[in-house]
Amino acid sequence: MANKRPLILITNDDGVSAKGINELVKCLRDLGELVVFAPDGPRSGMASAITSLVPLKYTLLKEEEGLTIYSCTGTPVDCVKLALNEVLDRMPDMLVSGINHGGNMAICVNYSGTMGATAEGCIFDVPSLGVSLLDHTPDADFSECCRIGRVVAEWVLEEGLPHGTYLNLNVPKSPQVKGMKVCRQTDGRWIREFKRSEDGSGKPVFWLTGDFETRSHYPDDDMAALNEGYASLVPCKIDVTDYDFKKRLESLI
Amino acid sequence: MANKRPLILITNDDGVSAKGINELVKCLRDLGELVVFAPDGPRSGMASAITSLVPLKYTLLKEEEGLTIYSCTGTPVDCVKLALNEVLDRMPDMLVSGINHGGNMAICVNYSGTMGATAEGCIFDVPSLGVSLLDHTPDADFSECCRIGRVVAEWVLEEGLPHGTYLNLNVPKSPQVKGMKVCRQTDGRWIREFKRSEDGSGKPVFWLTGDFETRSHYPDDDMAALNEGYASLVPCKIDVTDYDFKKRLESLI
Repeated sequence: MANKRPLILITNDDGVSAKGINELVKCLRDLGELVVFAPDGPRSGMASAITSLVPLKYTLLKEEEGLTIYSCTGTPVDCVKLALNEVLDRMPDMLVSGINHGGNMAICVNYSGTMGATAEGCIFDVPSLGVSLLDHTPDADFSECCRIGRVVAEWVLEEGLPHGTYLNLNVPKSPQVKGMKVCRQTDGRWIREFKRSEDGSGKPVFWLTGDFETRSHYPDDDMAALNEGYASLVPCKIDVTDYDFKKRLESLI
Repeated sequence: MANKRPLILITNDDGVSAKGINELVKCLRDLGELVVFAPDGPRSGMASAITSLVPLKYTLLKEEEGLTIYSCTGTPVDCVKLALNEVLDRMPDMLVSGINHGGNMAICVNYSGTMGATAEGCIFDVPSLGVSLLDHTPDADFSECCRIGRVVAEWVLEEGLPHGTYLNLNVPKSPQVKGMKVCRQTDGRWIREFKRSEDGSGKPVFWLTGDFETRSHYPDDDMAALNEGYASLVPCKIDVTDYDFKKRLESLI
């Protein structure tokens, strides 16, 4: 037991070179031993996708006191699985995924590779936190996001999380975030999702785009908090069973 | 309103040529107007992944009375989005995803493209059902799975489903399934997840594999039902908010 410092696994879906993950590393550096194990390029929108038809590889990029950085050919979830199964010599005390360039509020938790990796940490019973900034630009200013992310990360490291629960933190694009609210996931969906275009031979092709449409508004949902200039923290569950409808279904079917 | 027959959207993650989806089409053929909109090849383990960096294309493969078949270059969720946004001229009355070659019980709902597509239908408020057979072989016998899947599909078409809830049906590999149980998602995870091998130059590569380990056993969980020879039906929720922990978190953080 030579090394008693907390071990923190860091990953993302924008790839190991993105500004967001490197800002996160700087911000958490003194909290423990950091291992970055992240995709070798962008993997946005990969959700909890796993790679089974081709094998995975990983590469050691950097090794210095308290910080080791690997890149991996897989998805964000592949990264977590490979790091935990094959690379780390002990279970980490925390996983932090991000900082994502772009928000993962509302239904985005369903599509996000950042949140897929966070859920995967949770499945391994590693206290896991996903962090996203509502700014897609490559050179976004992560300072407020780092400030708030660090507070939550310190809390998670200290307190842990219940079995099967992980955290989704979103931070608005603002030079001064007002604070943080504990929220529920906003109910809604994307509409007008494709931009029609043409390939070189004139055949139609479809680019994913779209606008988010809220269905039900709740004062405690994450988009309400973000719109008011607060960061939102949504605790999320791995178990997606609808227990209320399960009871009704038992008598119906 | 010339056409009053129910419109049923069918997709999968094994690709449009897989036996499972074609058996499903045969089995549901007389229930309505069927549109198959499925990936042009295998997309297993794609979860709710979406494609944003390259454009999507689709191709009309077949058009006959009551049945239209398209293939698409995207993921299962891309297929659902593209069909609903750009291809169908009205919202379908039901979406059925599958029949998957292989089980999607327990935590598999998290990684499965079959279930990603099902969740996506639900996000559009289309009553949605995922169907999986616990047999990975390309020429699996789908007859019992079709028999039970059809009963559930008829029920969904008749009754609909609540906003935000979709169904995950798994059928054991058995010539005579005992019946069906309404279940909760089994709590557990995959272990020993990689087989280490070498590429042509001797560098290590990792193939995804693994064994499922149940953490908590409940008499009403889906693996219990399947192990006893029953089909399992789990109602699942899009909203992953952990409301119990949200309450605690509000006073903690």
